Amino acid sequence: MGGDHGPGVTVPAAVGFGQRNTDVQMILVGLEDVIQRELDRLEVAADSRIVIRPASEVVSMDEAPAAALRGKRDSSMRVSIDLVKSGEADCAVSAGNTGALMAMSRFVLKMLPGVERPAIASFLPTLRGRTVMLDLGANVNCTPAHLLQFAIMGTALSGAIDHGERPSVGLLNIGEEDIKGNDVVKEAADLLRSSGLNFYGNVEGDDIYKGTTDIVVCDGFVGNVALKTSEGLAQMLAAYLREEFKRSIFTKLGALFALPVINRFKRRVDHRRYNGASLLGLRGIVVKSHGSADAFAFDFAIQRACEEVRYGLLDLIRARLASQQPVETVE
Amino acid sequence: MGGDHGPGVTVPAAVGFGQRNTDVQMILVGLEDVIQRELDRLEVAADSRIVIRPASEVVSMDEAPAAALRGKRDSSMRVSIDLVKSGEADCAVSAGNTGALMAMSRFVLKMLPGVERPAIASFLPTLRGRTVMLDLGANVNCTPAHLLQFAIMGTALSGAIDHGERPSVGLLNIGEEDIKGNDVVKEAADLLRSSGLNFYGNVEGDDIYKGTTDIVVCDGFVGNVALKTSEGLAQMLAAYLREEFKRSIFTKLGALFALPVINRFKRRVDHRRYNGASLLGLRGIVVKSHGSADAFAFDFAIQRACEEVRYGLLDLIRARLASQQPVETVE
Repeated sequence: MGGDHGPGVTVPAAVGFGQRNTDVQMILVGLEDVIQRELDRLEVAADSRIVIRPASEVVSMDEAPAAALRGKRDSSMRVSIDLVKSGEADCAVSAGNTGALMAMSRFVLKMLPGVERPAIASFLPTLRGRTVMLDLGANVNCTPAHLLQFAIMGTALSGAIDHGERPSVGLLNIGEEDIKGNDVVKEAADLLRSSGLNFYGNVEGDDIYKGTTDIVVCDGFVGNVALKTSEGLAQMLAAYLREEFKRSIFTKLGALFALPVINRFKRRVDHRRYNGASLLGLRGIVVKSHGSADAFAFDFAIQRACEEVRYGLLDLIRARLASQQPVETVE
Repeated sequence: MGGDHGPGVTVPAAVGFGQRNTDVQMILVGLEDVIQRELDRLEVAADSRIVIRPASEVVSMDEAPAAALRGKRDSSMRVSIDLVKSGEADCAVSAGNTGALMAMSRFVLKMLPGVERPAIASFLPTLRGRTVMLDLGANVNCTPAHLLQFAIMGTALSGAIDHGERPSVGLLNIGEEDIKGNDVVKEAADLLRSSGLNFYGNVEGDDIYKGTTDIVVCDGFVGNVALKTSEGLAQMLAAYLREEFKRSIFTKLGALFALPVINRFKRRVDHRRYNGASLLGLRGIVVKSHGSADAFAFDFAIQRACEEVRYGLLDLIRARLASQQPVETVE
């Protein structure tokens, strides 16, 4: 039900995804009549592959996570997570309130052994391909051990989805030299060096989009600022480009000739293709879609969740965590 | 002498600036023969308006700040700062090693009363104009009081250069709600609310380029990551756009038609126009140019320093700091 647009976006996306992926059963959780109306509008009948699971409540986008956790036990969000817990669903996808989704997921599903905090991880486009970045906002204060756990989970995610053997891990810092950065980052670097992971070392902000490493690890405050700053910059550049092309009849003519190129470019940098952040560290697969996602973007979030199920992400994380205890020495 | 390119960039920039600004005397500090060779190449004679001040040493880009501070007393960097201290120069501009510049400036010039830590501040382009952001990397760990001091100095800088009466201050955070963020940011928000500054409240990463506030305040770790991430994203987008236009004979033709637009766009987002970060909080004006700056970019750094002198930035900061003690109540 969630997100800025609700079932008007999530239902068409789910139906479309289900039609293209015939091995997947979609369970649409939420206000039954609203979902049914959407299905009617799409001229799709609920059948064995598209099922409605009624939930009478809705978690609003600005609701306090603790309040949602206590009060909204029959919300679409909570029921979806309960379905993952019971095993009836393999994964849950939501465009709703991030904090509430995190709190409910943690409460219902519990953490994997060896993980103290869940992390929000997402793929970002780079000059070389794509990079997994985490944490993107779940944890404001992190210890070095948390950052190590993020690196382990990020390695599992990157390895699973991009089929990498030993994906490289960069630690986000403000200088490449070991002496730079705060104490948490310095200690995290020590832990990472002796972790057996493919630790590249410190990376700086520009390394994210250079694609210097397959994974970039940071605390949730820094990661969230970096992500939102990127969104803001991309929007500003797009607005500037639009303005320049609309400046006069000549520039509009130029735009016409450049249109195929601009469209290819737009397609390539379309953030909707990167929609779907993984809530890692839980005993279940939960993917958060951007609240403002349209059906095209929401489809990618469903795809991310299904890939995580298909490649057995949870087992991969479990195995990596297990091999970390006790901490390995450097290879 | 500093920066990635040395006097081959800084001397032509200084000469050009001096020729356009006849009320400014330029003192070129560094290895005399190297500077003289550059002047000869430019067919410019050192005269009363362009003076060479010999300095026998050079601080390298990767030198440890403490080592440079102890060992390089006759470096171009140190001599420049000494000239500011003695009053012979009104400001110093360097493209050299940031850490060393900061350490030397702090040691030689000392801090303004009421400022515990210097901050690196820069203007960034936004959808509405431009925004002053600080700290961009001088301070990894900040207290709420430091962030308040940054806000005061940023207000003075923004007000002076952009002639704003009461520039607005945003506190960089990961959510607009007051409950979000870490303890330092929460306490800083309390201080800012009762500071008498035009405090807007929390802003998120995307607000930087939206231009939501005239000033964005954050600690140096977060600020540096946000800045470097922006650089990386802009470079990636530029590379993508170039690739798309070079894809075929048709796209190249499209590029030809779009060229005037693309050039205007490039000019508008040219980061060189924003070159020149102010080292705020010192008893003297020091501006840091990007190490990779070319002459065009370095010119903007000189311009920034001269504007700070012209508008009496130090006195404005002093006055704002003085009016803050004791802390004012909310208006």
